[in-house]
Amino acid sequence: MSAPSKISSKASDLPGISQIEAAAGRIAGVAVQTPLLESPLLNRRLGGRIFIKPEMLQRTGSFKFRGAYNRISQLSADERRRGVVAFSSGNHAQGVAHAAELLGVPAVIVMPKDAPAIKVANTRSYGAEVVLYDREKEDREAIGRAIAEERGSILVPPYDDPHIIAGQGTVGLEIAQQMQSLGLVPDQVATGASGGGLIAGVSTAIKAYFAGCRVYVAEPEGFTDHGLSLARGERTANPAPARSFCDALLAPMPGEITFAINSRTLAGAVSATDLEVEEAIRVCFSDLKLVAEPGGAVALAAALNGTLDCRERISVLILSGGNVDPELFRDILDRRA
Amino acid sequence: MSAPSKISSKASDLPGISQIEAAAGRIAGVAVQTPLLESPLLNRRLGGRIFIKPEMLQRTGSFKFRGAYNRISQLSADERRRGVVAFSSGNHAQGVAHAAELLGVPAVIVMPKDAPAIKVANTRSYGAEVVLYDREKEDREAIGRAIAEERGSILVPPYDDPHIIAGQGTVGLEIAQQMQSLGLVPDQVATGASGGGLIAGVSTAIKAYFAGCRVYVAEPEGFTDHGLSLARGERTANPAPARSFCDALLAPMPGEITFAINSRTLAGAVSATDLEVEEAIRVCFSDLKLVAEPGGAVALAAALNGTLDCRERISVLILSGGNVDPELFRDILDRRA
Repeated sequence: MSAPSKISSKASDLPGISQIEAAAGRIAGVAVQTPLLESPLLNRRLGGRIFIKPEMLQRTGSFKFRGAYNRISQLSADERRRGVVAFSSGNHAQGVAHAAELLGVPAVIVMPKDAPAIKVANTRSYGAEVVLYDREKEDREAIGRAIAEERGSILVPPYDDPHIIAGQGTVGLEIAQQMQSLGLVPDQVATGASGGGLIAGVSTAIKAYFAGCRVYVAEPEGFTDHGLSLARGERTANPAPARSFCDALLAPMPGEITFAINSRTLAGAVSATDLEVEEAIRVCFSDLKLVAEPGGAVALAAALNGTLDCRERISVLILSGGNVDPELFRDILDRRA
Repeated sequence: MSAPSKISSKASDLPGISQIEAAAGRIAGVAVQTPLLESPLLNRRLGGRIFIKPEMLQRTGSFKFRGAYNRISQLSADERRRGVVAFSSGNHAQGVAHAAELLGVPAVIVMPKDAPAIKVANTRSYGAEVVLYDREKEDREAIGRAIAEERGSILVPPYDDPHIIAGQGTVGLEIAQQMQSLGLVPDQVATGASGGGLIAGVSTAIKAYFAGCRVYVAEPEGFTDHGLSLARGERTANPAPARSFCDALLAPMPGEITFAINSRTLAGAVSATDLEVEEAIRVCFSDLKLVAEPGGAVALAAALNGTLDCRERISVLILSGGNVDPELFRDILDRRA
């Protein structure tokens, strides 16, 4: 869960398409404009036209770079000097570390000790100072806040922040523009969600271009807090202690700002088990030649298990990241091979 | 080695930038315009700016679709009715099969029995009839030619054909345009070669935009026929029986037309061992989130082993394909993991 935001979630404060367009201007020439890929093999599997937005090809291996760069690039000279601090299971960590590095801003990242080794190593390689904590016993927000207070540095929250949401929304803006240039109107768009920043930005952009397009949140079984929240009309935590290997999607409940957006924009929720996510990772490997991490493949897993019906529809599936350790990836290939 | 071409290799007959631009028009909206990816991790490893052209993201998982579509889309109605035939270890097979499928043309593909299973299965899934042969005992050209004569179908050669070369050249045209839009001038471009169709087209396009850019052919150790041919100034076969797991790059010597081009456009040759190619595949996995097949990773392997010096230079490396069996990929990850 993110730090409580000082920003209220009145509709007038929520980032809209103009904030997303401004973010696109800030990240232009720095972030990768990821392609929209269509695979004939995947179309055949699913009986519709499937377009993949491969955000593992983004700098740092996930979409998180977009929001981090949009946020940090707007800091004042004084704020930049004091540096930034972030807490993250890994992808936000790398996004903040690399965006800070490019902008010449010192960064401290608070990460769980059990985060994938590749995420910790990469975060350090972008020049950030990494502080590890115990996920079971320590409070990452308290650690992050203490560092921020001690050094006067700026906390860059993982999702519940209008600038972060606007930055992630550039994924949706690119999808909308890419579909337009193909002369197509998407019937549905799906992506995973942890705190909901990506899907809040994406759904805002998609709805601005294609008002009738349905946007679905895809969640790992046991972490269906967005689906529950949509059904109840209020922010609701995951029901009971659960486990999933989708390490990027384990936030306990939607953010305040993100839910204020998503409760208006989303058409519903779909989900997949870890075994189904593994199969989606194998399909990414064989049909798309892309390395997906578990949390990055949930939307495709929901398409493959049929909870997201893609038959005779035009669907866009966001693959949000690819930071997976080689040992796990090898084991996933092994379970079929 | 390709079928002997009836087309002479006089300079006036060689495909130039205008043929490549025409090919780009034919494949527009059908082929994927693959992105140009820059990885900060890879830049740091190699001490320069590295741009990756990921052709594993192309339809059918390799660049081969471009040339095949450019060739088959120019057949007459009568020729289309009679169908096409091709012989290939796998990537050209899939490219021809899928291009033919999209254009409503029947296709027969002659493939070696020991081709990677994924390449055979995918070729069939695109609707082609697959005829398997024994690489040690049978002559694929004779088999292909017999089928062509019997059915009156059109042979689509893998590389020694101006339309194939022009189609593959669209990879270079895209690189040139993408570098221009970044405001950059590449110092060097490298890609693997089997018969040399891709690099002939790429070097033609690159030289048309950036006359001073050096284009290098990257080859697996033991299959350095392009390097030998460049050094001697004439088409020269691989020296002795050798083995490499780069199944896409095992042609015995350069093509006639391709060598007529490459002998004028290339700056030199670089090479890598199979073990170095394995390391390049792991770097693709970790730094780029891309699935590369052995033959697709040789240019990166030559950059990593230092034979292609990338320090303080702007380099473009083409990763030409990603059709690798999961068992092999798992083993490659395993050898480090």
